[in-house]
Amino acid sequence: MKRIGIIGVGHVGSTVAYTLVRQQLCTELVLFDKNSELTEAERHDLMAGQVGQHSSVKIMTLPVEQVNTCDLVIFAAGDISILQHSTDRFAELNYTKTVVAEWAPRLRANKFTGLILNITNPCDVITQYLQKLTGLPHKRVFGTGTTLDTARMQVTVSEQLAVATDSVTGYVLGEHGNSQFVAWSSVCIAGNGLTERFTQTELDHFEELTSKGAWTTISGKGYTSYGIANQAAVVVAAITTNAHAVLPVTNYAVAEQCYLGHPAVVTREGIERDFTVPLNAAEQEKWRLSVDKIKQMTATI
Amino acid sequence: MKRIGIIGVGHVGSTVAYTLVRQQLCTELVLFDKNSELTEAERHDLMAGQVGQHSSVKIMTLPVEQVNTCDLVIFAAGDISILQHSTDRFAELNYTKTVVAEWAPRLRANKFTGLILNITNPCDVITQYLQKLTGLPHKRVFGTGTTLDTARMQVTVSEQLAVATDSVTGYVLGEHGNSQFVAWSSVCIAGNGLTERFTQTELDHFEELTSKGAWTTISGKGYTSYGIANQAAVVVAAITTNAHAVLPVTNYAVAEQCYLGHPAVVTREGIERDFTVPLNAAEQEKWRLSVDKIKQMTATI
Amino acid sequence: MKRIGIIGVGHVGSTVAYTLVRQQLCTELVLFDKNSELTEAERHDLMAGQVGQHSSVKIMTLPVEQVNTCDLVIFAAGDISILQHSTDRFAELNYTKTVVAEWAPRLRANKFTGLILNITNPCDVITQYLQKLTGLPHKRVFGTGTTLDTARMQVTVSEQLAVATDSVTGYVLGEHGNSQFVAWSSVCIAGNGLTERFTQTELDHFEELTSKGAWTTISGKGYTSYGIANQAAVVVAAITTNAHAVLPVTNYAVAEQCYLGHPAVVTREGIERDFTVPLNAAEQEKWRLSVDKIKQMTATI
Amino acid sequence: MKRIGIIGVGHVGSTVAYTLVRQQLCTELVLFDKNSELTEAERHDLMAGQVGQHSSVKIMTLPVEQVNTCDLVIFAAGDISILQHSTDRFAELNYTKTVVAEWAPRLRANKFTGLILNITNPCDVITQYLQKLTGLPHKRVFGTGTTLDTARMQVTVSEQLAVATDSVTGYVLGEHGNSQFVAWSSVCIAGNGLTERFTQTELDHFEELTSKGAWTTISGKGYTSYGIANQAAVVVAAITTNAHAVLPVTNYAVAEQCYLGHPAVVTREGIERDFTVPLNAAEQEKWRLSVDKIKQMTATI
Repeated sequence: MKRIGIIGVGHVGSTVAYTLVRQQLCTELVLFDKNSELTEAERHDLMAGQVGQHSSVKIMTLPVEQVNTCDLVIFAAGDISILQHSTDRFAELNYTKTVVAEWAPRLRANKFTGLILNITNPCDVITQYLQKLTGLPHKRVFGTGTTLDTARMQVTVSEQLAVATDSVTGYVLGEHGNSQFVAWSSVCIAGNGLTERFTQTELDHFEELTSKGAWTTISGKGYTSYGIANQAAVVVAAITTNAHAVLPVTNYAVAEQCYLGHPAVVTREGIERDFTVPLNAAEQEKWRLSVDKIKQMTATI
Repeated sequence: MKRIGIIGVGHVGSTVAYTLVRQQLCTELVLFDKNSELTEAERHDLMAGQVGQHSSVKIMTLPVEQVNTCDLVIFAAGDISILQHSTDRFAELNYTKTVVAEWAPRLRANKFTGLILNITNPCDVITQYLQKLTGLPHKRVFGTGTTLDTARMQVTVSEQLAVATDSVTGYVLGEHGNSQFVAWSSVCIAGNGLTERFTQTELDHFEELTSKGAWTTISGKGYTSYGIANQAAVVVAAITTNAHAVLPVTNYAVAEQCYLGHPAVVTREGIERDFTVPLNAAEQEKWRLSVDKIKQMTATI
Repeated sequence: MKRIGIIGVGHVGSTVAYTLVRQQLCTELVLFDKNSELTEAERHDLMAGQVGQHSSVKIMTLPVEQVNTCDLVIFAAGDISILQHSTDRFAELNYTKTVVAEWAPRLRANKFTGLILNITNPCDVITQYLQKLTGLPHKRVFGTGTTLDTARMQVTVSEQLAVATDSVTGYVLGEHGNSQFVAWSSVCIAGNGLTERFTQTELDHFEELTSKGAWTTISGKGYTSYGIANQAAVVVAAITTNAHAVLPVTNYAVAEQCYLGHPAVVTREGIERDFTVPLNAAEQEKWRLSVDKIKQMTATI
Repeated sequence: MKRIGIIGVGHVGSTVAYTLVRQQLCTELVLFDKNSELTEAERHDLMAGQVGQHSSVKIMTLPVEQVNTCDLVIFAAGDISILQHSTDRFAELNYTKTVVAEWAPRLRANKFTGLILNITNPCDVITQYLQKLTGLPHKRVFGTGTTLDTARMQVTVSEQLAVATDSVTGYVLGEHGNSQFVAWSSVCIAGNGLTERFTQTELDHFEELTSKGAWTTISGKGYTSYGIANQAAVVVAAITTNAHAVLPVTNYAVAEQCYLGHPAVVTREGIERDFTVPLNAAEQEKWRLSVDKIKQMTATI
């Protein structure tokens, strides 16, 4: 991928930038932020941050009028401090929707036709709102969704059962927020479903540990940076390599008429198709509740 | 991992060496081969083969008396040309067993206590024979097994269904040879079992394509090098990172009293534990046949 | 390298941790910080920050009594906010010397015999102080020194002359602070010395741009993270690969009886030997002034 | 870079393919060879050769009529066995010029306008001939030149002086063949010129060791694969990242009206500019002889 833009270079946006640079996932990276001193600072830090590593991404700042030269824009604008005062994604939405209302029309006005990968929370609702305001097709606008939550579940299972995270397959589905759930029916190690090896109580315990890990991060450092930046890079790599990776991004579920985290094939052209994960009755109920929650939040915009 | 040895630096052994070097999976790599001009040639080629890439593995030749300084030995000795005249693993065994009989006692005599990763074919039988002659514990001797066959199945499914190989989970089990089989019961994409989406005829077709790909390689270039070297590197990475990756290496199945390809946790200390993949009746029968075939071959030594 | 410890996991320390993890430069990484909620937060964030990337470093927290199990300790404790109120490294020293006085005796008391890589500023003075208080040999205690400054010089020359940073060789020498200087006599592109192609005025301009870039970063984001974390990783890679890389770390110059940034061979055992860079008269004078400045600061402790 | 083609997939071409795939230097790789069974074999081997490594280059075969869809073509056709009977590059030329005469018109006929990176020997002469027959601008046709020879010199100096190859800067110049020479005037470690630290006798000894290493490879395994594939990948990375790396490729020296190995800036658009390395009188004489030798060979076509 030639040129990627990042809108918002706070802790999350800049860590995403650093991660993309270190993985050489583009040849040019454009930083957009209302704070131009910050973009200049990060530009210099990121340029120095690749010397001696055979990495050579050109870090740039450009006027927003040239955003249409980007093949992909990562939306990471927001204010992480909001979540420190409240665990309520609604509170966050009240602020971040104004940021979308600020940037999306600029993308539209400047005829941006690339892909949008949204990180800003509440991720599902904001992704939907970005799609609406930019007018881009659903398949070209998606978000990190439950990729991070899935990764955290893999870490928990990995630590509890002493197998590598890569060897734990399965998904966390739904909202990137409180109504999400581990689809234990989908979680396997070596072809063995965890639901057949562990009691519901044990699985509930794993799920609690996963949530606890997330809140330990948020409460201890005030935000998540490495976990989310890493998943953003996984999604960007899926786009740039065009390998057709299946990832639990937030993407538009036609049947639900709603964006939510569930597996989809991510390509150079965006979302190619999504998958329905087989769920048991209890999980289907959780899926339904998560859809309702996201729709409810969306309705408040 | 500090020091890895490779015994046999023909097409396979040297490609493994190159792959390990490029992934920096060790700091020192020792080449062993009866042909000392070849080891010197490869040493020079491999040293030059990392300049300008920030790679810096020290390539060495050492007398076999110092093999005990290696933390891991990769056994890749053999004569690939044998298989060109015949697709019969028995024919191959007749030769390669003599190579084991030559090297294994040297390992034993020189008090080698590291891990052995065998690539030489017939992989399962030779791994068992290496274990026997070196007297090392079963957990410290294993082979590439059906890792390559599994990879090839992933390539086929990936190409047929347009999803990334990494997004296709599941295993080829049994002998790294004709009696192997795809355990379709274990193969999933996005939590969806392939047996529920495809007919047996379709799955059989995928399996045929997989075998055909393997033979296209063998007949077209006379041997496999990149595919097997890559899987050897995957196993070595599992060892060096100690991430507890689950891989379908050939490892000792206690219940069967036999080495064969099936998933196991590979660590810095070798095989930590293996898994029984849930199989349907037809697959269980294939498993049984594969066990019998391997035992039969082993009995001929 | 098996186990690396990081003391201080603020912006710099945690970014170093993330960088080491992403480059898989160790198998275990131990986070030390007086703020245990922060280490737990970073531990979780860093564990999640490698899922899906084939990275698998085990992130740990341990009581300081076990610091002697680390092969290398990276010292990144400090308080970056100090420099925001003042560009004076003396002010910084007044605080960071107390942090050294807190940690170094613990390393000594717990019989730590590994390597120390110092990042905390004023880097040269603090490195010297760490060596003194731990009582470790000079060769086992060193710091990032002018590696970042050299990288920034390479970025400037790269941008001005349109060649890759890797193709610009040469050094910034002396204090990692205001008295540092570009040793233009050492700077070459394609075997052509820059002093023979550019006037002193032009070179002075390049040097100013370099300083300006550094201060743009500091003033715009309050600290440097990616640039310094990257160089720390370059030094750590030199240690772990044992490739005998020559890097302008701050290391003990016997002739000067002082730590300052100048090229040395960095190995698994620490500093193997240092080099005297041929300098012209004006540069020798700058070197002298920088030595004096560092000694002066050291004397105030 | 989206699509790279390789013409000739023997030992060198296929090892280049494997190296590009492992470094993910393109998203699609097209194999061209008169032997279609071989391209199919390598296609399968290379597809399997990336599973489990997060690599996902699409390996393809295409009719030569579609060669114009490649952004870069690597020319690796030839017959390595020729050099086994003779160390004479003239003998090699007699054969390889016919291969060029076969492929170059096809590139021209199919309106190929991408870059050509030549590996086939005698590298300088063949590169010139490729440029002539394709009619492409000089800047778009270049070859690996003395990149491998320079790497080998770095290995020798690295081993003799115990510093990393990356820390040895300088060049081997001229013909990729017998008339090449180490430009010792350009070789530095830590800003110290080797000509000032070592006698001519010592430097001559290093140069002999370098040549000897090359012939040890050729005579021991019959060809060079890893060394040259690695340098080809270094050049390809220079092209794809557009970092403006300076590399001693064989490129057209206007003053000499001849292709020969000397440093040039390699970019996405090809050779941007070349550099004159400052040489002493003896080296200038060697340069002259090398130019003469190349012109002499070229004249025989």
